[in-house]
Amino acid sequence: MTDLEGYLNERRRMVDAFLETQFQLADPHFARLFEAVRYSLLAGGKRIRPVLTLASFEACGDLRAPLSDSVLRVAAAIEMIHTYSLIHDDLPAMDNDDLRRGRPTNHKVYGEALAILAGDCLLTEAFLLIAKADGVPAVILLDVIGDIAAASGGSGMAGGQAMDLEFEHRKISPEDLEHLHRHKTGCLIEVSVTSGAKLAGAEGGRLQAMKSYGQAIGLAFQIADDVLDVEGGEEEMGKATGGDAKKEKATYPSIVGLEKSKTLAADLAQKAIQSLQGLDDRADPLREIARYIVSRRK
Amino acid sequence: MTDLEGYLNERRRMVDAFLETQFQLADPHFARLFEAVRYSLLAGGKRIRPVLTLASFEACGDLRAPLSDSVLRVAAAIEMIHTYSLIHDDLPAMDNDDLRRGRPTNHKVYGEALAILAGDCLLTEAFLLIAKADGVPAVILLDVIGDIAAASGGSGMAGGQAMDLEFEHRKISPEDLEHLHRHKTGCLIEVSVTSGAKLAGAEGGRLQAMKSYGQAIGLAFQIADDVLDVEGGEEEMGKATGGDAKKEKATYPSIVGLEKSKTLAADLAQKAIQSLQGLDDRADPLREIARYIVSRRK
Repeated sequence: MTDLEGYLNERRRMVDAFLETQFQLADPHFARLFEAVRYSLLAGGKRIRPVLTLASFEACGDLRAPLSDSVLRVAAAIEMIHTYSLIHDDLPAMDNDDLRRGRPTNHKVYGEALAILAGDCLLTEAFLLIAKADGVPAVILLDVIGDIAAASGGSGMAGGQAMDLEFEHRKISPEDLEHLHRHKTGCLIEVSVTSGAKLAGAEGGRLQAMKSYGQAIGLAFQIADDVLDVEGGEEEMGKATGGDAKKEKATYPSIVGLEKSKTLAADLAQKAIQSLQGLDDRADPLREIARYIVSRRK
Repeated sequence: MTDLEGYLNERRRMVDAFLETQFQLADPHFARLFEAVRYSLLAGGKRIRPVLTLASFEACGDLRAPLSDSVLRVAAAIEMIHTYSLIHDDLPAMDNDDLRRGRPTNHKVYGEALAILAGDCLLTEAFLLIAKADGVPAVILLDVIGDIAAASGGSGMAGGQAMDLEFEHRKISPEDLEHLHRHKTGCLIEVSVTSGAKLAGAEGGRLQAMKSYGQAIGLAFQIADDVLDVEGGEEEMGKATGGDAKKEKATYPSIVGLEKSKTLAADLAQKAIQSLQGLDDRADPLREIARYIVSRRK
């Protein structure tokens, strides 16, 4: 594979184009709700999670399984769940953030009530999107829905967010911090990877390798994010930086130090790449994403 | 069928017993979130929606399809979605209610942040519960997930809630009010019925009859609720009554008058019962529920 950057940009464009077709209705009474949904859903963003789903599908796929509408649906659904979590996390009762991706947060524009509903709506319709997919055996779609719900629910992302609230203003151990990050961010990134793999029919050792890759980059991503919150400029991050320290949030730099954090993230990226050693060059985009995650500037 | 009240009580106990087994974990970091979830999920309540799912399954079923764990899972999932909607609707940014089912609302006990997360968690895990069901063809479970997500999402319940916000402090037409109620309450009640029917293998005219029944009782239920908000005592309702008027919410009594509202609800219950004319006495509990919905005192 020669043009990895081109590959990733192309995949991101596919995701963006698909998301653009969503919540484009119709009943005028829902217009403002749908506008609030689209405001956050189409705000750009790196689209790391859905691109991981597509790239994982392609890494595990064969000629019988070209990129299909079903895979795009699952990828888009995961981005919708990610977007819902950002909208709810930004609320005054949660992180109380005014800025996201360089623009006012959803509740700053549409008010708290509509922001809560926009998040609810994105979460709900993510499952609708997958349930209405075709061209993939129902039993696999059902399995993927179960995985995504488990990764997002009380023992996954939502549990991680609750842990985050619990840990605020408190000194915690490195083990607790890893536990927090694996749930708050890691679970959804991991399931982005395994969903793509399962849609391509991966199982056994192949699926396990993808799972290891997903776990490693999931944690690496959040550590890199913590580092960027300390080092990144506000312009690059599209949100106020240094915010974690202001809120006395537990982060890798605050617990293990900045340099150790960078080393940990780089090691995890390396571990992720090693997990893929049994896969051929169709997994190169995944290898590239692992490198990108720990070297990105925003 | 001789003892309908006994039948309904027994079904409600089955739902309660199943819900009692949920969110009973494990990781101490999630303990407070799960406590918040269980606080609202196990607060009693009439369990109308899940009982409708069970009764619809039994009305359409045959000897090949006894009440199974899968049907209970779908019924419980719908109650979880209903509970999430109550928690979020009660939030200060939404209806700002202090009392629900005779107890302080979720955010009054656990704070707004955890209440938002408890709702998110219930919504997410409802889909997990169904995805992990077995004994039913995957294609039917997938169809039911799609129906439930559509009934709860932006063009269903969440859309209805957005409409409710839009209509506050504003005079609206009877047509708009019906549109509002059909979305805010009707969609989820209708899907409680059709999910049970689909799990029993209903299709064609039988499924259409169940759909008509569900639509009629869905609207009847909300009209009866509006009437109770005017007439019911605080003790009977388990929440402050007269609240709709205080918030200048559009209701049937405020738009078409109290007596006309009662007539409309009774007519809808009758219409619901007529929809079931092709079904035998196994549909008696559904007929009884239609009568109960418009005669209940809370």
